[in-house]
Amino acid sequence: MDYQPPERDIEFLLTRVFRLAQEWSVTPSLEDFTADVLSAVVVEGGRVAREVLAPLNRIADTEGCRWVDGAVTTPKGFKAAFSEFASGGWLGLSGNPDFAGQGMPKTLGCVVEEMFWAANPSLYLYGTLSVGAALCIDSHGTAAQKRVYLPRLYAGSWTGTMCLTEAHAGTDLGIIRTRAEPRSDGTCSITGTKIFITSGEHDLAANIIHLVLARLPDAPGGTRGISLFIVPKYLHDDSGQLGARNSAVSGSIEHKMGIHGSATNVMNFDGATGYLIGEANAGLACMFTMMNYERLSVGLQGLGAAEAAWQFAVRYARERLQSRSPSGVKNPAAEADPLLVHPDVRRMLLTIRAWTEGGRAFAMLVGRELDRSKYGGDRQAQVFSELLTPIAKAFLTDKGFESAVLAQQIYGGHGYISEWGVEQLVRDSRIAQIYEGTNGVQAMDLIGRKVLRDGGTTLRAFLATLSPDDLAEEFRGAFNDSIARLLRTTDALAQRSGQDVNLPGAVATDYLELTALAIFAWLWGRMADAAAGTPLAESKMHTARFFYARLLPRVLSLEVSIAASSDAVMASDASSFE
Amino acid sequence: MDYQPPERDIEFLLTRVFRLAQEWSVTPSLEDFTADVLSAVVVEGGRVAREVLAPLNRIADTEGCRWVDGAVTTPKGFKAAFSEFASGGWLGLSGNPDFAGQGMPKTLGCVVEEMFWAANPSLYLYGTLSVGAALCIDSHGTAAQKRVYLPRLYAGSWTGTMCLTEAHAGTDLGIIRTRAEPRSDGTCSITGTKIFITSGEHDLAANIIHLVLARLPDAPGGTRGISLFIVPKYLHDDSGQLGARNSAVSGSIEHKMGIHGSATNVMNFDGATGYLIGEANAGLACMFTMMNYERLSVGLQGLGAAEAAWQFAVRYARERLQSRSPSGVKNPAAEADPLLVHPDVRRMLLTIRAWTEGGRAFAMLVGRELDRSKYGGDRQAQVFSELLTPIAKAFLTDKGFESAVLAQQIYGGHGYISEWGVEQLVRDSRIAQIYEGTNGVQAMDLIGRKVLRDGGTTLRAFLATLSPDDLAEEFRGAFNDSIARLLRTTDALAQRSGQDVNLPGAVATDYLELTALAIFAWLWGRMADAAAGTPLAESKMHTARFFYARLLPRVLSLEVSIAASSDAVMASDASSFE
Repeated sequence: MDYQPPERDIEFLLTRVFRLAQEWSVTPSLEDFTADVLSAVVVEGGRVAREVLAPLNRIADTEGCRWVDGAVTTPKGFKAAFSEFASGGWLGLSGNPDFAGQGMPKTLGCVVEEMFWAANPSLYLYGTLSVGAALCIDSHGTAAQKRVYLPRLYAGSWTGTMCLTEAHAGTDLGIIRTRAEPRSDGTCSITGTKIFITSGEHDLAANIIHLVLARLPDAPGGTRGISLFIVPKYLHDDSGQLGARNSAVSGSIEHKMGIHGSATNVMNFDGATGYLIGEANAGLACMFTMMNYERLSVGLQGLGAAEAAWQFAVRYARERLQSRSPSGVKNPAAEADPLLVHPDVRRMLLTIRAWTEGGRAFAMLVGRELDRSKYGGDRQAQVFSELLTPIAKAFLTDKGFESAVLAQQIYGGHGYISEWGVEQLVRDSRIAQIYEGTNGVQAMDLIGRKVLRDGGTTLRAFLATLSPDDLAEEFRGAFNDSIARLLRTTDALAQRSGQDVNLPGAVATDYLELTALAIFAWLWGRMADAAAGTPLAESKMHTARFFYARLLPRVLSLEVSIAASSDAVMASDASSFE
Repeated sequence: MDYQPPERDIEFLLTRVFRLAQEWSVTPSLEDFTADVLSAVVVEGGRVAREVLAPLNRIADTEGCRWVDGAVTTPKGFKAAFSEFASGGWLGLSGNPDFAGQGMPKTLGCVVEEMFWAANPSLYLYGTLSVGAALCIDSHGTAAQKRVYLPRLYAGSWTGTMCLTEAHAGTDLGIIRTRAEPRSDGTCSITGTKIFITSGEHDLAANIIHLVLARLPDAPGGTRGISLFIVPKYLHDDSGQLGARNSAVSGSIEHKMGIHGSATNVMNFDGATGYLIGEANAGLACMFTMMNYERLSVGLQGLGAAEAAWQFAVRYARERLQSRSPSGVKNPAAEADPLLVHPDVRRMLLTIRAWTEGGRAFAMLVGRELDRSKYGGDRQAQVFSELLTPIAKAFLTDKGFESAVLAQQIYGGHGYISEWGVEQLVRDSRIAQIYEGTNGVQAMDLIGRKVLRDGGTTLRAFLATLSPDDLAEEFRGAFNDSIARLLRTTDALAQRSGQDVNLPGAVATDYLELTALAIFAWLWGRMADAAAGTPLAESKMHTARFFYARLLPRVLSLEVSIAASSDAVMASDASSFE
């Protein structure tokens, strides 16, 4: 695809909707990020996405990765592109400046990550895991570990992985079997097999740093007995000089529905040397530093897919001539009008646009909370970011996939054949709903840990920050109504779930959607207001009206279906499922 | 996949819900189809699906078709399987008995077609197009044409195609360019290029009968100037003896997202010999005989995909152990409980089941109307079948794809890798929403031709046949409410669309969903009632309650979104789509 960075919309969000340069001008260590700096980063990130990553997206699919005797070859061109990409400093964008990171706000990170995901998800996967591993080591590692790993991960000369899943243990990490045996030199011997390890082996970097969950001897059962270890592919000294090959070897790679350019490995650890990171038996908490980052990043993958879908769809709808408009000929010079004149095609286009531009605004909202927490020391913002992360992961990836499927539909038969590229987008975007915790797991995280655990207090506090006064006036009533429905539903759930332990899980997915729609209502009303008087005024107002008229009414049915007892899903016996 | 024919559910629908043997015992030419005969056909059809078709479904995907110099090789095993399948008489099941067809009711055809689609859609595609071509020739051909073509198409020794689409003309058939020049011998010379021709070339049959849309000289413009031609791959005499190769040649085959075992051809007609079928310039109407059959058949493809999704999902949910039930340990012998204990997994399973078993009942409803029309001479039933066909095509394929995606989600990461087969189901099922008229086109057919054209009279008459008295009592109120919403919405649309020409298209997709949900509400209430006292009682009642509590509330939001003006999609200028 000829990917075009959505600079105009990003600029609009940064300057008009969230006014970030203004906010940062009074935030310690962010004062330097003036509007001009933001623009320059966005433009250069967009250039890299368009010129370096996007041209390799097709070959990523058609060539894929090859595995021979434990070595993995990535698609032609990936090595040079990854090197060019990494040398631009993009992996260290929000990294720790004490170790060669650039210390930029996370909000800006979200913006550029979206572009990288949109341009080439297979290739960017090698990057995002390195960023996440660096974040984890920065949070939990020793000074010596930071010194050796962070600059190399930021530079992409080494890359990272997260090794959690085992064949029998996916969502359920409490039952992992990989063992860590302490040795007299303070290291551990790691033994076990991990599956679905993205970037577990490849040819893009000199070394690979695996972050591996394993059990120490006599560790308590379940998730409280899991520790985290750094297991490098090549052992090294404190200066990063590479030494012996560690016993961490790729046993094979998976054949997958999509993201063929990303190597998904079975990793065999056979007495490999590992270094404990963080406290013993507190590995899952350490890993969550990485996981929370990755969950937001995967949400951005969904957003990138939605943007790619938008670009595919709108170009084809403008160019493809087929049938006449119901209101009369629009293109008399040709034998048919462009698809764009057909109301049902417009419905699909506007749906994609509502999810894409609304999703971008949502991602920026999450980024802003993360920055307020990290740079402003705002504890409430930290809690809000934790509330919003599962929504970002699940809703943006659901809508990314939905958008890809809609774009494919607009292409008709041409959408199903490989030539046009849009079917690849559908296959590639599907994974984002599954990995980093399935979207069902995200929904249970939201309803359980993030909402019901404090009886909805955090949610209520967050929603109170979404002022109806910030919205274009015509949307305020419907927005208030959606919020009222969400709050009523939340209060009722808080009360009912005491007597009904199955209830949160039974309605979790619907509840996440309801919450997301209410927040999107604020974002669309806000964008319509902020666009007044700008060149985006017509498009933002029209899409906002479409969202309110055609997508937001979904809250009506969600409210009713969430009101159902968990009996609706749990009443019958397991034996009736056969 | 180890496909298991859903005999129990089919039997339940035939004998308990629709009591077809009873109805047919008083229908001329259907008296012989006693309950025992129905059972025997279902069991044998199921055996063929399971033993002959299903074992080749994986190789259909992995090997695909190969094109060399105009010849197409199908996957290994296809030829023998198609021959065994066809020799069982399945392609002539509902065919004309005067020409070696079996004259069985269409309802029974629906039941067995679903199984063939579920077991191996790539392979069954070679069959369904032959059935459709035979139907078209039976309706519009001469006696001589019927004599030579029908027995061979029923036997699968020759197969059929429908050649409509050209590179610039998909939905918009009015602008096709393929030309037909009359010759002095009464035949025509056909010249043009058709694309996306399923089974256009392959190695499964001795001859291929193309039904080709083309324009005669001086034909009126648009759809009123299109004629239909029979263009055989090999010319033949009246006894079916093959002669010279006709100039109808495959130029290439497409690389597609799925159904790799089905050959999708570019067909070049270069002065090929063609025989007019039906009246000149009435070709589109003739082709619609085939298209209406294919639309229902593609709906059954969606239903088959839903059933396959159900089987994939429920088996994995029973076998895969992961995490503990929220209500306490259910499987103390192992370290985790089966997925089936988790409420969000149940939600997905029950959603698939509601679409699958509801879809099967819906398909039977359509089949019954077709049989009442064909064998009972019931004109109203014919009109009802035309009303229901676009719903069958669009809704069953939408829900088939949705079910496949849900099944994939239940597998987690294992759903994304090729090994398990469920990702193939997602890719294979996607096409059904696109071909035979995209689902948007079906929605416009429903709202425009089938509902608004007569001001909703046909719809109202059909809905009046769905008596609330046939439903388990607890569902009657909610069913009546859904019907009331649908009728209110229809009346309002009939009124509003006079002033707003864009309105039908703008809301068509939502309107089709609303209509389908109201009919499914009847079917689920009916099944819950009919299952009382049988072994299916618990499962039908539970799924009915799930449908009413969790899926049917969608009508609330659809009613509101359909009430929006077409401005919601059409108000802004084309220039804002860039």
